[in-house]
Amino acid sequence: MQGAARGVLPVLVRSSFPVVLAVPSPPPLHPDTIRTIEGYADAIVLRHFAAGSARAAAAVASVPIINAGDGPGQHPTQALLDVYTIRRELGRLDGVRVALVGDLAHGRTARSLAYLMAMFPGVSFVFVAPDVVRMGPDIKAHLDALGVPWTEAEDLRAVAAGVDVLYQTRIQKERFQDRPDQYEAARGKFVVDAGVMAALPATSVVMHPLPRVDEIVAAEVDADPRAAYFRQAKNGLYVRMALLKLALTK
Amino acid sequence: MQGAARGVLPVLVRSSFPVVLAVPSPPPLHPDTIRTIEGYADAIVLRHFAAGSARAAAAVASVPIINAGDGPGQHPTQALLDVYTIRRELGRLDGVRVALVGDLAHGRTARSLAYLMAMFPGVSFVFVAPDVVRMGPDIKAHLDALGVPWTEAEDLRAVAAGVDVLYQTRIQKERFQDRPDQYEAARGKFVVDAGVMAALPATSVVMHPLPRVDEIVAAEVDADPRAAYFRQAKNGLYVRMALLKLALTK
Amino acid sequence: MQGAARGVLPVLVRSSFPVVLAVPSPPPLHPDTIRTIEGYADAIVLRHFAAGSARAAAAVASVPIINAGDGPGQHPTQALLDVYTIRRELGRLDGVRVALVGDLAHGRTARSLAYLMAMFPGVSFVFVAPDVVRMGPDIKAHLDALGVPWTEAEDLRAVAAGVDVLYQTRIQKERFQDRPDQYEAARGKFVVDAGVMAALPATSVVMHPLPRVDEIVAAEVDADPRAAYFRQAKNGLYVRMALLKLALTK
Repeated sequence: MQGAARGVLPVLVRSSFPVVLAVPSPPPLHPDTIRTIEGYADAIVLRHFAAGSARAAAAVASVPIINAGDGPGQHPTQALLDVYTIRRELGRLDGVRVALVGDLAHGRTARSLAYLMAMFPGVSFVFVAPDVVRMGPDIKAHLDALGVPWTEAEDLRAVAAGVDVLYQTRIQKERFQDRPDQYEAARGKFVVDAGVMAALPATSVVMHPLPRVDEIVAAEVDADPRAAYFRQAKNGLYVRMALLKLALTK
Repeated sequence: MQGAARGVLPVLVRSSFPVVLAVPSPPPLHPDTIRTIEGYADAIVLRHFAAGSARAAAAVASVPIINAGDGPGQHPTQALLDVYTIRRELGRLDGVRVALVGDLAHGRTARSLAYLMAMFPGVSFVFVAPDVVRMGPDIKAHLDALGVPWTEAEDLRAVAAGVDVLYQTRIQKERFQDRPDQYEAARGKFVVDAGVMAALPATSVVMHPLPRVDEIVAAEVDADPRAAYFRQAKNGLYVRMALLKLALTK
Repeated sequence: MQGAARGVLPVLVRSSFPVVLAVPSPPPLHPDTIRTIEGYADAIVLRHFAAGSARAAAAVASVPIINAGDGPGQHPTQALLDVYTIRRELGRLDGVRVALVGDLAHGRTARSLAYLMAMFPGVSFVFVAPDVVRMGPDIKAHLDALGVPWTEAEDLRAVAAGVDVLYQTRIQKERFQDRPDQYEAARGKFVVDAGVMAALPATSVVMHPLPRVDEIVAAEVDADPRAAYFRQAKNGLYVRMALLKLALTK
């Protein structure tokens, strides 16, 4: 019985340990889980807390695995919808100047976006992050190897004035379990408010993977046509529909 | 891409704080939640613990919001299915005499039913509730303003003899967190049993929003053709299907 | 409105007390639950912790009840897929020699398989279980009443050499709450490894209801074509589809 005959049945595999972020070593994905579920589904959409779990699942599975986030690793479908959003909002991808702001050490979305945007010619990055959560050396080395220019900066308004995309991210409190003082120092340091919007060019956009806390001031920014984050979230539906279609018809 | 093209995708938004009833101030619904989900759905069915949350969501959303219960506020789809059930069981709505029994202070369903039935001519109410959970002054004032007669009574059998609908509700233990003695006093005071059924006219019906504890004696009432509560529950399916169709085709 | 008109809507009823295994007396299934859900569904698939709950539900319900496991009672759909797997793997059911291995006292699947396979002519059983979790006297008496031969054995390799189906099961840690020493003694006593596979005939198969812990050594057995457990799991999809079709079209 083929997928086409029985209809398409994608399965979302969620770890049953949703609070496990604070645990030093979450239980790894069991290969039996994949080998069992692949018997029931035409594709597996996998979100798991262990970095590398999607790759491990793909090595075992006979059906397509879609990585929906593997812990501190990558979040590729988010990166795809982010790139689609940039293309749709700006009309181009080549030569786009991107500021990545917030928790760049733990934020999968910022990391994955840097990785994917680096494939387009003329792209450049500015990283704006509190000291304790700066962009990791792996992404920087990756950009260097590809010859993609990047800098680090501290003045968000000055940065805003020179970019096409201001990509804000949340300082993730759950990453600061034992360091509440560092969390307080990190959050609120770089906030997108009316002042930042005044500096941002008229043709640029503000993006955010959501949810947000207070790193974008809703009352000062949401009504601005350059606030693209809810359109960005909606694009996720279409990009993931397209991805499932691609995976299931190839 | 329109709803018709991609199929209809209603989304049920449940608060992620299902045990929050005992908390003095549950977290309010975040507008970002609505603005994100409306990107994925053609309608939002919202159940939330904060009174007024559905109204707040509707102010933000560009898709229809269906209120599936907003804490101690209203439960309008239950009221719609209750009214549909009365119409279907009795063959009419005009002039119906309704007894509302049980926890009338916290029971959303009784409150919403009073509110909705008050729109039909000739309807009258009797409230039968333990002292600590009597019908609130807001509903009484609403009925007074509309000229709908209501009384309060203590003798359930005497009341049963003179009504078309005996609408029983559960004393909600979770509302008596710090007052277990009051809960014990309230429950068991007004029970629908064989004696009450003997007093109830042959053409009247017993309704209940379910679940029940012991305020209707199953062994003495369930087999009676006037016990309409399971038919009432089933009507909920059809009324909500109709409501979704209405919301999605208007 | 009939099932055919509104589409088929089977409902899976799960107990809301998933951790209740350790509780001496889990709350029984409430008849009101069934009478409410049958208003919404064309069939009810019931998994509940109380033995006999499916039978009790069927006595109340006006729609088909499919028993998806009733605590320590039976797990008939698993037995159906197991019998289907044996038929498909071996090409026959008559005269099949089955070894049931592991926790035969608590394992519903082994109990239900013995019960169902006993209906086919010439079938025989060998039970291989740690002392504390041996096959219960009820199943043994049932087999005796039907004249189905069974024995108990301790040497798994010797048993493997003489069977068509080696059905391994997990020692269920959660059944040994207060007896961790007995759990440690029971697990690891009968493990399917390369040595057992060497003894097993070329035309025999290894089955397991999954999940497993370490009672089958993955690295030594999974790649063997006689390892049928993932095919067995996949068969569950088709058998349950067939069962729903049968229940809904009869």
